Amino acid sequence: MLRQEQNDLVTQTGRGTPMGRLFRSYWTPVLLADELPKNDCPPVRVKVLSESLIAFRDSEGRYGLIDEFCPHRRASMWFGRNEQHGLRCAYHGWKFDVTGRCVDIPSEPESSGVAARIKMKSYPLVLRGGVLWTYMGPPELKPPLPEWEFAMVPDDQRFVSKRIQECNWLQAMEGGIDSSHVSFLHQGNINSDPLFKGAKGNQYNLSDARPVFEVVESAGGLYIGARRNAENGNYYWRITQFVLPSFTMIAPRGGHSGHGHFWIPIDDEHCMAWSYDYHPARKLTAIEISAMKDGKGVHGKLIPGTFIPVANKDNNYLMDREAQLRGESYSGIDGIAIQDGSLQESMGGVVDRTQENLVATDRGIIMARHRLMQAATELVESGKTPPGVDVLHQRVRSAAIILAPDLPLKAGAKEALTATEGKAPATV
Amino acid sequence: MLRQEQNDLVTQTGRGTPMGRLFRSYWTPVLLADELPKNDCPPVRVKVLSESLIAFRDSEGRYGLIDEFCPHRRASMWFGRNEQHGLRCAYHGWKFDVTGRCVDIPSEPESSGVAARIKMKSYPLVLRGGVLWTYMGPPELKPPLPEWEFAMVPDDQRFVSKRIQECNWLQAMEGGIDSSHVSFLHQGNINSDPLFKGAKGNQYNLSDARPVFEVVESAGGLYIGARRNAENGNYYWRITQFVLPSFTMIAPRGGHSGHGHFWIPIDDEHCMAWSYDYHPARKLTAIEISAMKDGKGVHGKLIPGTFIPVANKDNNYLMDREAQLRGESYSGIDGIAIQDGSLQESMGGVVDRTQENLVATDRGIIMARHRLMQAATELVESGKTPPGVDVLHQRVRSAAIILAPDLPLKAGAKEALTATEGKAPATV
Amino acid sequence: MLRQEQNDLVTQTGRGTPMGRLFRSYWTPVLLADELPKNDCPPVRVKVLSESLIAFRDSEGRYGLIDEFCPHRRASMWFGRNEQHGLRCAYHGWKFDVTGRCVDIPSEPESSGVAARIKMKSYPLVLRGGVLWTYMGPPELKPPLPEWEFAMVPDDQRFVSKRIQECNWLQAMEGGIDSSHVSFLHQGNINSDPLFKGAKGNQYNLSDARPVFEVVESAGGLYIGARRNAENGNYYWRITQFVLPSFTMIAPRGGHSGHGHFWIPIDDEHCMAWSYDYHPARKLTAIEISAMKDGKGVHGKLIPGTFIPVANKDNNYLMDREAQLRGESYSGIDGIAIQDGSLQESMGGVVDRTQENLVATDRGIIMARHRLMQAATELVESGKTPPGVDVLHQRVRSAAIILAPDLPLKAGAKEALTATEGKAPATV
Repeated sequence: MLRQEQNDLVTQTGRGTPMGRLFRSYWTPVLLADELPKNDCPPVRVKVLSESLIAFRDSEGRYGLIDEFCPHRRASMWFGRNEQHGLRCAYHGWKFDVTGRCVDIPSEPESSGVAARIKMKSYPLVLRGGVLWTYMGPPELKPPLPEWEFAMVPDDQRFVSKRIQECNWLQAMEGGIDSSHVSFLHQGNINSDPLFKGAKGNQYNLSDARPVFEVVESAGGLYIGARRNAENGNYYWRITQFVLPSFTMIAPRGGHSGHGHFWIPIDDEHCMAWSYDYHPARKLTAIEISAMKDGKGVHGKLIPGTFIPVANKDNNYLMDREAQLRGESYSGIDGIAIQDGSLQESMGGVVDRTQENLVATDRGIIMARHRLMQAATELVESGKTPPGVDVLHQRVRSAAIILAPDLPLKAGAKEALTATEGKAPATV
Repeated sequence: MLRQEQNDLVTQTGRGTPMGRLFRSYWTPVLLADELPKNDCPPVRVKVLSESLIAFRDSEGRYGLIDEFCPHRRASMWFGRNEQHGLRCAYHGWKFDVTGRCVDIPSEPESSGVAARIKMKSYPLVLRGGVLWTYMGPPELKPPLPEWEFAMVPDDQRFVSKRIQECNWLQAMEGGIDSSHVSFLHQGNINSDPLFKGAKGNQYNLSDARPVFEVVESAGGLYIGARRNAENGNYYWRITQFVLPSFTMIAPRGGHSGHGHFWIPIDDEHCMAWSYDYHPARKLTAIEISAMKDGKGVHGKLIPGTFIPVANKDNNYLMDREAQLRGESYSGIDGIAIQDGSLQESMGGVVDRTQENLVATDRGIIMARHRLMQAATELVESGKTPPGVDVLHQRVRSAAIILAPDLPLKAGAKEALTATEGKAPATV
Repeated sequence: MLRQEQNDLVTQTGRGTPMGRLFRSYWTPVLLADELPKNDCPPVRVKVLSESLIAFRDSEGRYGLIDEFCPHRRASMWFGRNEQHGLRCAYHGWKFDVTGRCVDIPSEPESSGVAARIKMKSYPLVLRGGVLWTYMGPPELKPPLPEWEFAMVPDDQRFVSKRIQECNWLQAMEGGIDSSHVSFLHQGNINSDPLFKGAKGNQYNLSDARPVFEVVESAGGLYIGARRNAENGNYYWRITQFVLPSFTMIAPRGGHSGHGHFWIPIDDEHCMAWSYDYHPARKLTAIEISAMKDGKGVHGKLIPGTFIPVANKDNNYLMDREAQLRGESYSGIDGIAIQDGSLQESMGGVVDRTQENLVATDRGIIMARHRLMQAATELVESGKTPPGVDVLHQRVRSAAIILAPDLPLKAGAKEALTATEGKAPATV
């Protein structure tokens, strides 16, 4: 449970809010690489952290992320002409480069010197790991580029997707670090989804619905261990990573690829749910990629040409009560991503956390909120660099492992939770 | 005319408002019986008096009406699994019985004792007369079950429907006690609608558009007599019942069945218009029921699978100016219910009663508002049980009768206005 | 740039606002004549200056513009019956004449005298030049009927259209007096649009994108000259008229007809963009009229039966990036009116003028705002009749002319800018 002012603090990310300032300390994913597929391609609207922006790729392949509105008379740059090293406003032809600098005002005498005085809001936009990242904080504090493991592997070892979710980012993210609901909401998928099925660990998940949670503070956030009974008195641990502000990782199952999410605020009542799969030690197969594109695993099936799920609020998520009765789907909704999204959206634009009743299995969520509020407060009050900015904090993995009962999680999982180039993940 | 603060008082029914407290003194219709057709059937969303709720029917046939949102993390219980004597949240499997008691938290150790501490908001839900009724007030003040005559007759003597109306409940209800508009808005239907036509009384309605109104306070509300001239110096009286807070009854015509409405707030800008037909002394015929399902009489023709009229605001109610010119329909809109609904919605979400000009024929409306405001005020100030709670107040009928000119309405109509089991209504 | 309070002042036109009072000093176009095509035809909804009204034409051909809502119980008069010299409310048959006087209350005794006390808000509605005009100000200040030249020519010399634009009126109007954007946004149309192409002046427009602006105060507003280089050291001048509050005129090209716009607030975030073509000295040809109906020139192509453009916000204005690349359309949007409308709507409901950067080519806009604010302030403070009310201020033309370099615009253009019956416009 949070008090109303805590809920406001932790959910609001517009410019000038404490949590907005926290988010602006990191590199933030905003576009898939193929949304800007070639030089001088059409510009793309981006709404992130409640700011309306335009992304484009110039004649030399440089990326830019600038204010949506032309500084002249505020027409949208989305209508702009992307040509010859800059984006021209379609209204009066004012032209801007990827840094937001005004490089031409064709209606004014060149001697006027106006162009030199005009500078648009702009943010860096950088390609890494199939994703275009921006940094929206003070330039002098810009951290090194992100080093998430999924982004550092070769392109053929990775698949990334995104979908719009009609709720605040935090209630979406809380689903990402909530290992408990897997045994319920997703129980029909564990043994049937092509990207999950066949793993031995699935049996532990399904046979023990009452895991014991151990949540450990990490440098960048938390890792959340869910302990279930395995054979011979040993424990089966599934360990989920949370790195501030909203990066989460889920352990792979058996030989499958591993997963992660970024939960990025669009505005305070919408977020972009980013999902990725990757394998540190092998290419993804054509069958795997085809399944991911089809909305299997942690990905959502989308309306073509959009980032809106086929099953969405307007159609009651294509709820199938018969499938629910037959047990194929615990909630009657098809697909892991939409199962999560539908319930998170059902809580409302921003869930009323003053009305919650949290229990032992929610310990990860409780601690994540605490770390977020603390980091935001320390940033605002003393300028302290928040956890997760340091690339070392990003070089982590989730894992599923069997440990002897007397081995503490922290010691036993240490290696498995560290990203190591080319090394297969610890899975069961 | 009302002052703005009076208009607010009499139209707002959320929890904590005076009129909201008044409404919560009564049994309120929320679902048709066939919306929960069998044990363990899918749960149904209910919004009533601005509260979001979920209705369900458990494995033993018990009905429950509970908070829409799971007390754990506020996922909607609409996605829930209705199984083995309770509704399980689809997120983490928390299970609740029809009283809102948490009976299982499968992710927690049973020894934790958490379940026993969790209780959801819940209201009783009871089937009577083809309708599921709830009571949303203090348990200690729960009145006996409603005894409206339509609900007490055998099922084959009754037909009930409901439709969503996009306006405040009060302006809808004011149409229900407004006998004057029948001579205008509905004039094209009186002699053509299969559930109205052929009655002798219709001629009085159409030949005298200037009835004299006599409004009498009854135990439960008002009855509103509209007097028109009949033969030999006698009077033709049509008497409409209003029982607090929003129950209205319209007299049958000739041998047709009688009608009634409940005007139930969904929120302050939407209401559910309930309509029923019944005959105290005979079964409804297949032809009558077919006509009712088709939107004749006081019922509306609905988009299948919804409670939204086919003719609605988005399509200008399928206005037919040619039919209006030919006089088939005074307003160009087809069907009595939609004629009323369209005009009431056209007034806006909440009609601005500071801008009205009420006249003699509006006396029933004036007095109904007065009784409502008085009852709400007395309830809030002194806890006085409002009119209409007592089942005796509900055992009333509307009627159409011929009275000698010297017979006062109160004396002459007394018997006709009393519900008497098996006895045919007084009609002309 | 404006301060926020200036932006509020100049954009808000509801009753009681200074700019609303200014607008209510003029005859305002509200309907095309053919929206009320014959006596006793259906009434039409009109929203203008944030007021909801109903226009109708009675049995004698008199026009009326009255409050949308019946003064009795506030049902919309749109459902009314237009019959026998008045409009009857469909609810209880109250009848009003074109002046808003209640002429019959059929449900009340005639002796009650109620009708005589009821008077609806009403405004005069007058046909001139194919347009129905209203005046919404104090009756004692009602000016003579408008004498815009387009409205005074014979009907076959004129074509008028209107379309809804989803933004404040002012940012729409600012497009109408902005000669600079023609060289950019509309450059693909100047030589291809059938109502523009072939004129010699087009070459000046396209070869000199950096015109010098000279803005001159006129009696009714401004005229805005854009000077480009012509042959032999002469100047090519295009002169756009602005007459308060929101009337603009664009010079014809070659032998084509001339154009004008009225930018009329619907509410503060929507306006009606009126467009007309006329020729003072000849009939429009069938080919011209067919092109105008098809959305060429300054007209927009509309969804049949509506005033909504086919290409609109919901479909991204049918943006064609290939056409943009090929240079057929600078913005990728088809049609001059929609090119303007799309960019103006992209600025948001009310553009944030605190964030602008105006330059030399915006001088006309700057001065227009200044005149508007000054006129509104003087009207409110001292009751001064604003510019443009006097019909003499309306008898102006736009023009395109060649002047010797030493001839001042004011002197050289004087005759060309004056409306003279039967005389062809000065064009190049």
